[in-house]
Amino acid sequence: MMRLEHIGIAIADPKKSTELFDRLLGKSGYKQETVESEKVTTHFYDMETAKIELLVASSEGSVIEKYIQKRGEGIHHLAFEVDDLPTEINRLKNEGFQFINEKPKPGADNKMICFLHPKSTNGVLVELCQTIGKNENMDFEN
Amino acid sequence: MMRLEHIGIAIADPKKSTELFDRLLGKSGYKQETVESEKVTTHFYDMETAKIELLVASSEGSVIEKYIQKRGEGIHHLAFEVDDLPTEINRLKNEGFQFINEKPKPGADNKMICFLHPKSTNGVLVELCQTIGKNENMDFEN
Repeated sequence: MMRLEHIGIAIADPKKSTELFDRLLGKSGYKQETVESEKVTTHFYDMETAKIELLVASSEGSVIEKYIQKRGEGIHHLAFEVDDLPTEINRLKNEGFQFINEKPKPGADNKMICFLHPKSTNGVLVELCQTIGKNENMDFEN
Repeated sequence: MMRLEHIGIAIADPKKSTELFDRLLGKSGYKQETVESEKVTTHFYDMETAKIELLVASSEGSVIEKYIQKRGEGIHHLAFEVDDLPTEINRLKNEGFQFINEKPKPGADNKMICFLHPKSTNGVLVELCQTIGKNENMDFEN
């Protein structure tokens, strides 16, 4: 079962945007984390049911930098948490969905993550994630 | 307090996209509803923590039609539920946020809704909503 876990929002200026989202959401973010392999720094807000994740490029060549150049700042992706990522990836492959990376990689917030290609998902960049250690079946080598 | 309530996704072909999202999300939508005043038909999926709302133009001149012409299909807006919409609107106006409509109007799913202008919210179209009858303080005339 998929649960909406967070919404990723691409931002260019972390100081300006965290101030803006603090005022918009009426609270401060609770965590900031850089994922070096993804060249991205994340700022998390707990919106009770799900999270808002602001995404800023942490170094040159980040996908977030490229996204903003092409589309401007705004909503970047939706993330669904699943209990068994390898099984879910196989299910979606069998359904004909295309992946950007079908081998999960470490993401922010202690999660393994993979992305489906928006060409196969109606223009929506979809992340699947699973919290590391939350489930015994995490055989990511298969 | 704001709670992430749903994500709106603009789609062009309801038959094709509901079939796609049924396969992607591993479940069927639980409700379809047309909001004539907004010229939009909505298809809701319960993603446990929050909902996915597919949005298709129900007649010519719909904002969804215009959005797709400009940006293509994809994520259209984020919606946050609040307990006291008039108070929240006043708070955000005092914070300097711009509204598309600051007087709430009836939306789908038995809710009063209003939208903030994405120019003031980092490129993100933000909906605020309140379920009708959920709170005594719903003095929308002020």
